[in-house]
Amino acid sequence: MSPYSAPTAPRPPLRVALAGIGVVGGGVVRLLEANRELIARRAGRPIEIVAVSARDRHKDRGVDLSRYRWEDDMDAIVAADDVDVVVEMIGGADGSALTLARHALGAGKALVTANKAMIAHHGLDLARLAEQKDTPLKYEAAVAGGIPVIKAIREGASANEIARVYGILNGTCNYILTQMERNGASFADALAAAQAEGYAEADPTFDVDGIDAAHKLSILAALCFGTQLDIGAVTADGIRGLIAADIREAEALGHRVRLIGMAERDRENGGGLYQHVQPCLVPADHPLAYVPGALNAVVAEGNFVGRLFFEGAGAGAGPTASAIVADIIDIARDEYGPAFAMPVDALDAAPAADAGARVGKHYVRLIVEDRIGVLAEIATAMRDAGVSIESLIQRGSEDGDGVVIVLVTHEGPASAIHAALDVLGASDHVVGAPMHMPILAL
Amino acid sequence: MSPYSAPTAPRPPLRVALAGIGVVGGGVVRLLEANRELIARRAGRPIEIVAVSARDRHKDRGVDLSRYRWEDDMDAIVAADDVDVVVEMIGGADGSALTLARHALGAGKALVTANKAMIAHHGLDLARLAEQKDTPLKYEAAVAGGIPVIKAIREGASANEIARVYGILNGTCNYILTQMERNGASFADALAAAQAEGYAEADPTFDVDGIDAAHKLSILAALCFGTQLDIGAVTADGIRGLIAADIREAEALGHRVRLIGMAERDRENGGGLYQHVQPCLVPADHPLAYVPGALNAVVAEGNFVGRLFFEGAGAGAGPTASAIVADIIDIARDEYGPAFAMPVDALDAAPAADAGARVGKHYVRLIVEDRIGVLAEIATAMRDAGVSIESLIQRGSEDGDGVVIVLVTHEGPASAIHAALDVLGASDHVVGAPMHMPILAL
Repeated sequence: MSPYSAPTAPRPPLRVALAGIGVVGGGVVRLLEANRELIARRAGRPIEIVAVSARDRHKDRGVDLSRYRWEDDMDAIVAADDVDVVVEMIGGADGSALTLARHALGAGKALVTANKAMIAHHGLDLARLAEQKDTPLKYEAAVAGGIPVIKAIREGASANEIARVYGILNGTCNYILTQMERNGASFADALAAAQAEGYAEADPTFDVDGIDAAHKLSILAALCFGTQLDIGAVTADGIRGLIAADIREAEALGHRVRLIGMAERDRENGGGLYQHVQPCLVPADHPLAYVPGALNAVVAEGNFVGRLFFEGAGAGAGPTASAIVADIIDIARDEYGPAFAMPVDALDAAPAADAGARVGKHYVRLIVEDRIGVLAEIATAMRDAGVSIESLIQRGSEDGDGVVIVLVTHEGPASAIHAALDVLGASDHVVGAPMHMPILAL
Repeated sequence: MSPYSAPTAPRPPLRVALAGIGVVGGGVVRLLEANRELIARRAGRPIEIVAVSARDRHKDRGVDLSRYRWEDDMDAIVAADDVDVVVEMIGGADGSALTLARHALGAGKALVTANKAMIAHHGLDLARLAEQKDTPLKYEAAVAGGIPVIKAIREGASANEIARVYGILNGTCNYILTQMERNGASFADALAAAQAEGYAEADPTFDVDGIDAAHKLSILAALCFGTQLDIGAVTADGIRGLIAADIREAEALGHRVRLIGMAERDRENGGGLYQHVQPCLVPADHPLAYVPGALNAVVAEGNFVGRLFFEGAGAGAGPTASAIVADIIDIARDEYGPAFAMPVDALDAAPAADAGARVGKHYVRLIVEDRIGVLAEIATAMRDAGVSIESLIQRGSEDGDGVVIVLVTHEGPASAIHAALDVLGASDHVVGAPMHMPILAL
């Protein structure tokens, strides 16, 4: 099919079935209706919704679905001869989303999904199935919502060896952190505000513990490094352990706290892959320090292009629909290829790097009892673990709950910090769990 | 050709000829050599340089070209049977670059170019020729260097109606402006520093007068709005008129000065297209305010995705080569389509919008003689033109060269500002040309 054939020989519409009509599904319906004409111009052919399927037909979704064929049984859209593309918006790593995805690809339909959990856990199997059936599998909306970062890395930065990829992959956490920044709020209060604004779920575990960001990071890592997607190798520390003082002290040190998912090849130690989500101190002259509210942002560092930075809305009906429909337009244009940029069998295995061997500067915060000898105990634990201290601040107790001690280390392996904090965390004089964050290296 | 055919049936190498081996050409050679294996994995086939051509064979380019066939005559690479892709890096809107581009496309070769001037002036003709010959025309490197912004807009944001596209499209100007910001330098001193650092040419006209940014803007506008590329409709004011006080006063107003190219549909007045390059005041809470040094950045605002922001290196051998080779990889993957996202005949004509009708707040700076009545003269000229003043600051003379008066207007049409400044510019009491800049609306 020539990409230029559109004007002389109009191509038939691309026929789409939507499975799972929640907030995002409603956005896709609205987008395909509102931008119908311009999409047809850009795609070289109309894109038509031919069927919709969801659990509850009678739920009010704020969009008129009556003009589309309703299928109670999702397998009916897979079996339908008039469906070219199945859009999976059910969610969840397994269950009916995965069943639908397998059935759709197995039937030779194109599959578009926003489901980061499913891609993180089953992306390789699905990509292999897509290859066998010679049909597209696309998932732009699964990472960083509306930001076309899958495309930017898969295609835009394709000429580069990527040194590392990292970013703010969870808007809920970023919203909470910027609330804490602006208002001096506690984590609990900022979380409550995020819940009130609809940025956080009633059960925020998935977001605030870094699980959602871990899913996205595993996908970015596979694309950047040409490695087999391996969600089991991604570790995550969330933001629950942060207190208002951490944000304040970070600011005093010229930094901001961001939940950063980072993947990097450990070239010095056998090329293992480091994939970790954790709060970090981001220097004020790094663009990630200026990403506000619920936005997402991704940085990719290439050996020729240097640092690329992408920012935009990471969630929400409109941005997610934008990414889903971009995938559909790529399919309509026949501009697509292997889901992970190369065939699954060409992806490298990537053993996990030793996260403890990772060298950097760290921020450490402890709350200690206000008594003689505690500072010596800290200094001793650090010395015994081989941690070299660059600076230390002890703030007088504000509310009687203990004294806050903040220190910044010289460059050293993370394992040394962990060893020191294991000792200090067990001390009777240290209140609660010590907090530590790496300082993002430029 | 199935996108998945690579592993079972290896595809033949894609054979590339490079025309014009300067800084960028050297970068492309180095990139294709350094990242050879990973490019072959990602592209599904090797990418091989089979011929190079430039004016002077014996110039030292810092890369070893001896392993490649040398052609003194550029038409020889067009005629060669073993060339699939011609990469044009000669530069210049016309002349041998354009001749080569026409011959290459006419011969059915794929054309990759970094030449913004040529695309801005002849992009439609070249795209039409590419369509006729059913061969790719790609130009990612022509806008914002290494940032994959052509792809991000053409494909990543393809589902959206774009309200406006704007950004920092010239790294030289941004370098000069950030020098002025940091050091309080004059334009002349900052320009000299940029020249010393290699960020500005000996004759900086092309950069500092906004011509280079205008070329890029015209390309972005065509892609965003589905309109016929029309460089003649782009107007440009450069940064020569800025003085140190402008940067300082902008900062005092909570803004930074950036040279912004912006394209926007004037929906209220017939849908004409506004395309203008000029220095603007960017609010401190807009990400463009934090783009430092010679970087570029582009913002696209979509009706579903919201604001997308892309930042990276806008020039230089490595970033430009990254974009050029990304285009080559797209061609190797058969993932490409019409150069301007749709066939040339499907692009709309777009009459120029009336720039004077554009409503916004403005910054105005005048240098006046320190004498009675001047302030009244300014206020009268503004009142007579219908310009409403929000704030006005008069700074005492620093060096005897006159008094600096800075005012910020309420929202109003640009034509009113122009009328007032025409009057004041002709006044005997106003020193030099008045400066005015729009304040970027969020």
